[in-house]
Parts: sequence; C-alpha cells; structure tokens
Amino acid sequence: MNPFAGLDATAQADLVRAGEATPIDLVHGAIDAADDVNPSVNAIIHERFERALDEAARVDLSAPFPGVPIVVKDLDGTLAGEPYHAGTRHLKEHGYVADVSSWLFERLQRAGFIIIGKTNTPEFGLVPTTEPEAYGPSRNPWDPDRSTGGSSGGSAAAVAAGIVPIGHAGDGGGSIRIPASACGLVGLKPTRGRVTLGPVETEAWGGLVARLVVSRTVRDTAAVLDIVSGPGLGDPYGVAAPDRPFLAEIGTDPGRLRVGFTTMSGDGTIVDAQVAAAVQRTAEVLAGLGHDVTEAAPPELGDAGYFAELSGHFLTAFPVWVSQSVDDLAIRTGEPATADTVEPLTWALAETGRGVSGVAFADAMDGIRVLSRRLQAWWTDFDVLLCATIPELPPTLGQFGAEPDNPLSGMFRATPVVGNTMPFNITGQPAMSVPIASSSEGLPIGVQLVGGFGREDHLVGLAAQLEAAVPWAARRPAIWAG
Amino acid sequence: MNPFAGLDATAQADLVRAGEATPIDLVHGAIDAADDVNPSVNAIIHERFERALDEAARVDLSAPFPGVPIVVKDLDGTLAGEPYHAGTRHLKEHGYVADVSSWLFERLQRAGFIIIGKTNTPEFGLVPTTEPEAYGPSRNPWDPDRSTGGSSGGSAAAVAAGIVPIGHAGDGGGSIRIPASACGLVGLKPTRGRVTLGPVETEAWGGLVARLVVSRTVRDTAAVLDIVSGPGLGDPYGVAAPDRPFLAEIGTDPGRLRVGFTTMSGDGTIVDAQVAAAVQRTAEVLAGLGHDVTEAAPPELGDAGYFAELSGHFLTAFPVWVSQSVDDLAIRTGEPATADTVEPLTWALAETGRGVSGVAFADAMDGIRVLSRRLQAWWTDFDVLLCATIPELPPTLGQFGAEPDNPLSGMFRATPVVGNTMPFNITGQPAMSVPIASSSEGLPIGVQLVGGFGREDHLVGLAAQLEAAVPWAARRPAIWAG
Repeated sequence: MNPFAGLDATAQADLVRAGEATPIDLVHGAIDAADDVNPSVNAIIHERFERALDEAARVDLSAPFPGVPIVVKDLDGTLAGEPYHAGTRHLKEHGYVADVSSWLFERLQRAGFIIIGKTNTPEFGLVPTTEPEAYGPSRNPWDPDRSTGGSSGGSAAAVAAGIVPIGHAGDGGGSIRIPASACGLVGLKPTRGRVTLGPVETEAWGGLVARLVVSRTVRDTAAVLDIVSGPGLGDPYGVAAPDRPFLAEIGTDPGRLRVGFTTMSGDGTIVDAQVAAAVQRTAEVLAGLGHDVTEAAPPELGDAGYFAELSGHFLTAFPVWVSQSVDDLAIRTGEPATADTVEPLTWALAETGRGVSGVAFADAMDGIRVLSRRLQAWWTDFDVLLCATIPELPPTLGQFGAEPDNPLSGMFRATPVVGNTMPFNITGQPAMSVPIASSSEGLPIGVQLVGGFGREDHLVGLAAQLEAAVPWAARRPAIWAG
Repeated sequence: MNPFAGLDATAQADLVRAGEATPIDLVHGAIDAADDVNPSVNAIIHERFERALDEAARVDLSAPFPGVPIVVKDLDGTLAGEPYHAGTRHLKEHGYVADVSSWLFERLQRAGFIIIGKTNTPEFGLVPTTEPEAYGPSRNPWDPDRSTGGSSGGSAAAVAAGIVPIGHAGDGGGSIRIPASACGLVGLKPTRGRVTLGPVETEAWGGLVARLVVSRTVRDTAAVLDIVSGPGLGDPYGVAAPDRPFLAEIGTDPGRLRVGFTTMSGDGTIVDAQVAAAVQRTAEVLAGLGHDVTEAAPPELGDAGYFAELSGHFLTAFPVWVSQSVDDLAIRTGEPATADTVEPLTWALAETGRGVSGVAFADAMDGIRVLSRRLQAWWTDFDVLLCATIPELPPTLGQFGAEPDNPLSGMFRATPVVGNTMPFNITGQPAMSVPIASSSEGLPIGVQLVGGFGREDHLVGLAAQLEAAVPWAARRPAIWAG
C-alpha cells in the first residue's frame, strides 16, 4: 500500500515542500508498493531499495523533486554500480554490473529523484512487448494477461500500478509511446538531440532512439523534459532550445493549432474500431477547444510504396545494430554471446546483420533520411498530427516469441504495432501518446500527437488541454498499489 | 579588370544601395575579371555569365546583397539546369546537368547574390588540393605553381584573385579552411547542423561535411552565415540558434575569452616554423586584446594513440562514402563508373569500401563519435583553440596525384595536411581559418580558431578583432583582377 500512489511526481514534491511528507516517506511508500504489487506485474527486476532510502535521507531538499521515487529501465542507460542486463540472459548470467552512469540518470538524480529500481525490458528492446526470456513477462496492470507494450514496459507497469509516478523510458521504434498507450500513461518521445545519450553513447540506432519517461500526468513529463534536456558535452548534434520552459505550456493558450487527424495506421494496418473511435473523439475535443482540426495526414502514411521502401532500408540497418549489440555483450563480459545466451530473434537478426555490407548500410541510412525529409513536408501546413498510437488494444501476452521454424516471427508480429510510431523515430520528430480513452473491456487506449521537429511545446500544450478536458488521472487499473 | 575587386560583398552591396553601382555593373565587373584572370588560375570551370546578367537585371534591390556576384563550387551542392561534375571525368563526359537546386544556393540567391559560375574541385573532394584530372589544376593567385588547397580551391582562387568577393565552399576534412589558409581568405566551417544540406542530401560523410563560403572579410562570412543558417524542413537534426545575429558579434566586445593555443599539429606533424610563428604572434595579439591566452590544447591533439584510433575509424568509413559516390555516378548517368572514368585514388578507395562490412562501418561511426566526445571535453575550460590551419605553406602543385604503383599515395600525402582540420569535422565544432600572416616568400598563412559546439559567435568575434588589429584586406596576390 502506497499512500502516495494517486499523486504524480509534482504533487509528491509539493508534499515534501509543505512538510507533509519526507523524502523517506515517499520512498518507503514506493518500496511498500513494490513489495505489494511488483510480484503481480514483474515491473522492477533490480531492486535498489536500501540505496534509495540512503539517498532519500540525504537528498537536497531544495531540488525540484526532493525524494520523489522513480524507476529506470534496464536498457537505454546505465547506472554505475547497478546491474545492466538489457533483457539478456547473457548479461544476467554474468552478473554484469555497469561502471558508468548515464547523464540522463544523473540529471534526474540531481533534480532530487530517487531511483528505487530498474525495470524489465525485452532483449535489447527489439520488440514492442516486454517478455524477455531472461526475466519473464511484465504484466499489464489493467489486465495481467495483456502485454505492457515495450520496450519500456517494465517502467510503464511500475507507473501504471502506482509504485512510482515516473519511469524512465527510451524509444527507438515506439518504445516510450507503445507502453504508455498500453498502460494508460503519458509517453513523450522527445525530438532527436533533445536529451543527451552521454557520456558513453552518442547516438543509438543511427539517431532513431530518444529517451525520456512515462508518467501519469502531462505536467510531470513536461517538468522532466525541462530538467533533462539540453546538450551534453560532445554530443554529435543538438536541437534548437525552446523559447520558454515546456512546463510553461501547461495552462497557457497554445493558440489555434492546425491539427490533422487520421484513423488509419501508417503501414496500412486496419485500426481497431475502438481505437479509431478514440482518435475521432480526440479530434472532436480538440475542435471543441478551438483548434483547426481536419481529417488529413501526410500522404506517405498508408502509402504502401513508401512503407515498402522505408521498411527495406530499416530492415537493412536494423540487423546491423543488433549485431553490434550482440558484439557488445562480449566487450562487457569478455565472453562472446552464442545462440544459447541470446534469444532466437536476436541471434537471427545479428547473423543477418553480419551479411550487410557497409555500402548497403550507409545507403539504407541515407535512404531513411531522405524518406524522413519527405514525410516531414506535411508539417509545413500543419502543426500536429493526431493518430492512433497502436492500431490495436494491448495484445495478450505470448504473441511475440520466436516460432520454432521462424526466429523472425516476433519481428513480423511487431510490424503493425509500430506502423504509426516508427515513422517518427525515422524523422526524429517529437511524438506523444496520451491516455485519452478506455475500451469496452476497460483497457487503456492512447492516441498519438506528432509535432514538427523541435516542437514539443505544441505537444505539451495540446496534451495538457486534453488532460483538462478529458481527465484520466482518476482511472485505476486492476492492479493498483494505492 | 574589375573595378570592384577590392571591395567585399558588403561594400559592393552598399554601392548598389547608394546608387553608385548597379547589380549589372557588379556582375559585369566580375565577368571582366574572370575573362582577365581565370585563364591564369583555372578557378571557374562552368561559366554562367549570361544567366548571371539576366538575373542581375531583375534582382530584388531590397535584398541584402543585391547583385553581388559570387561563385559556387561544383561539389557540395547543385544548381538546377547547370552542370554538376564533382571533379569527375565521368560526369563531365556525360555532360551531366543537375535538376535540383540546393537550398543553400537558393538562400544565397534570395539574398540577392548572383552566381556567375561554378568552380573547380578535386574529384569528390577527396584530397586537400584542387587538381582534378577532369579540369586540371586550379592555381594559387599568390604563386601559380602552388596549390590553392582543396577541396574548395576553385572558389578560393576566384575570391583571392578578385573575381568575386565570396565563393561557396564545403568542408568534410578541412575543405573550407585549407583553401582559405592557402589563398589568404577567411574560411569558416560552421557547426554541424547549422546549414541545411537539403533538399536532396540530409547529411554527408556521416555529418562530417559542413558548408558555407570563403570570403575576404569576416563581416562577409558572418552576414552569409546569418542568411543561410537555420533548419531546412526535414533536416535530420539541428543546432541551437544564436542569441543574436552573427554579424552583431563584429565590433561588439566578446568579453575575455579563454584561448588555448598550440604550435603543434593534431597528428604530430612538425609545423613549419613560419606557420608556428604566425600562431604565436596571433596568440600575442589576442593576449594584447585582453583575452586569457595560454599555451594549451586538448591532450588528444598530438596523441599518437588517439590519432591512430581516429584514423582507423576514419579509414574504415571513408572508403564506404567513396563507394557511394562512385555508385551515384551510375544513378546520375545511367552508366556505371569504371576504373577509366574516375581517378585511380577514387577507384581504389571505392573498391576498398566495398569490402567493409556494415558492422565495421557502424562501429567506425560510433567510434568516431566517442572519440569526438572525448576531444570536446577540453572546451569546458576553454572557449577557443588557436592553432595552425595547415602545418605547411601552400604545397606546390603535383604532389597529390596517384603514384603508378600506389593509387592511395595522394591520401597519405593528405594526412598531415588535415591533421589540424579533420578533428573538427569529426566533432562538428565550428572552426575558422583567418589569414593572419604572410611567409617570407609572400605566401598566405592562415591560423585556425576552433570554438565550442554551436559557438560560431566566439569565432566571428575573435576573427573580427584580429582583422582590426592585423588588417589583411590590402594585401594583393600576384594574380589580381583589380
């Protein structure tokens, strides 16, 4: 039982500032909640409870989030002295512990956040569900037979179940937005270059990966974005800074934004009727708020030729990145991975990647960037695209594993899931899933807002308006720590 | 004879605004100058004189540089309806004409500049001299037996000889700064992401290439940077915008900047004594101007281990890019290149590139970016690095061609030339060559200022101070159109 489960990070920090709770109270609440519900959701896989309590005891009370407990994903960053297993049996069996902390985590800690544990992830984040062989499936708090989405599914489950208000997440194809949609959370993938990947990494998956958090409220996401954005020394590139803090967009009139919406999915997959209805309803709410809303989308979305070309490039580059990830296991442990220490999908992709030539890889990356430029042209005439985050309700568990005769089957199952999210990893635009609706079964439905390059301000502003118009904070999942 | 040869672009534009010259006068002056001196320097290889006069006749007089003549390099951008040969016999023999204009060129034209021709470049810009088989050597106006540097040597020769005040240039390893140094010009390589490569290209050489101009004055470079910087729709990444126009840095006190200087070269090459003396003298001038000047440089510069690692990564990736360039010839002409239609160095590199695996290429790019982050750490404690642009006086012509038994010899000759320039293509930092001195033989000597990522403002400010303290504008080369 976590007495703070219903409070977002901002409210928890306010309690501390008001003297109504101490940082240790907050962390104790989260730990108790984890003890209660984590066995049901399998969100946290590396506990850090004692260190968290130690850190809470000496946290800087003038920090913006003094003592507010969070979790970080066991991928998309490392924490010195803590396990880093990236969803692999290989690292788990070697008991691998990282020796460097990501700047993103350090910035969160400097802001007063206390990391109570690390969360489950699919192996290397390759599929949009969180069911690694190494740690077993995370379970969706809204229905434990359903996927949390992935790859940040462990973090999403921890937040959705009320253990912590914020969970770190990373997104190379939808891995922030898909778990947010599946678990009823806010999930913003920031613009490429907004959040540093340093000190060790410079860019991941050729710039497709962006990192931030999932949260229950828009203000928490906006506040974290303000805290962690800005260049890290030596980053390969940057992005224009916003004119004012993202948090300031909340409650400020965003003006009449030009919103196009579509109930289609980017790759042509038919969108579930309840999901499509949520998009439609969101469009109506935005129109009611005074925005210029029309049914319109980039012509590339739903264009089979465009998606074939894009997929061709992606499926050339992606296996190369997987090969690098598998090679990295040997660097970290001194022992090469084998077909027995990583999952079949991973191994098959890595083997494929070794057959890709440097010229083919470089051509694929160039091709991806050219297609990306084409897609973004639409944002000349529009500010925001509204569409489904995923075209289906949260899938039941067990659908993404390798079939005996087809190790790549999980990837093919994943393709329709990422049809609306992946294109914006390609372009580097900010994109946000907002938990606008519930299905007749009581499952969360997210819709995606996609802004122009560097325009998280539009997304935060619109999402905050939606949150005020169609509040979601009072909804509670089946598994809830409060 | 060009009556405007001694005037920079800013002064030429002022003449038009004052009614003392028309755009057509300016363009006529440049065309006459080209007729006079281009046969001696071989700078312009595609004339565009009639179109230029047509454009001058209808240029917008309210544009900032109405009718001011410039040249653009026959690489690093295309102009619809004009030849694009990239220094290759292959494209020359096919009479290839481009069908798209680069946004950079369109922005220059919208600012009133009139492009009178396209300039010579080594094949694909692979070496730091401008001596392509296709078009023969450009000659240095200060000594026609010397190299103009490269790859923007044709543009540099045209500006140095007084044909035009500004020449477009691009820099993937030093190709703006080296010709600027060799020809006595100002040459700023902007920060990665500052100047769009669109609409066709997104990034070149994995982000190592940046484009701008060479000019005779700091104010011309600053003004052009203000005009052409800013994102292009669909660019893969951006950079923080400056707080004020770069032009405003000129004449504004830049404050006491922390300047480290070194008379060494990055790869350990011994720097010519006259070049080292120019660096030393510049350091003294900057100290005299009140800056905090110390003899200091990033420890990675001159570190043999660091350079071996960097070179290893670069020499893995570079041949892949050359393979892509050779493949592009077939795309543009419908006919594959052969060992007979490109130069021996190009062919040898392209063949090497085809043997590089995708994993090796991706690892090399990651390695480059990791080493890049390490190098930039020095800019925590310093604002600007001052060093030689090239460690030698402008080389005599004929040194960079392939030897009969070693097609790669030109690349090895190039290695020491780029020892101080290439590292900042790797990092993406802004770097500027300033024509601070002359050798006893009367040859130009440039020194390089390297700013923190995104800090062109520091470079423009410092260079303007140097220009005021040690004026170079009155110096005239042996070949001069005035």
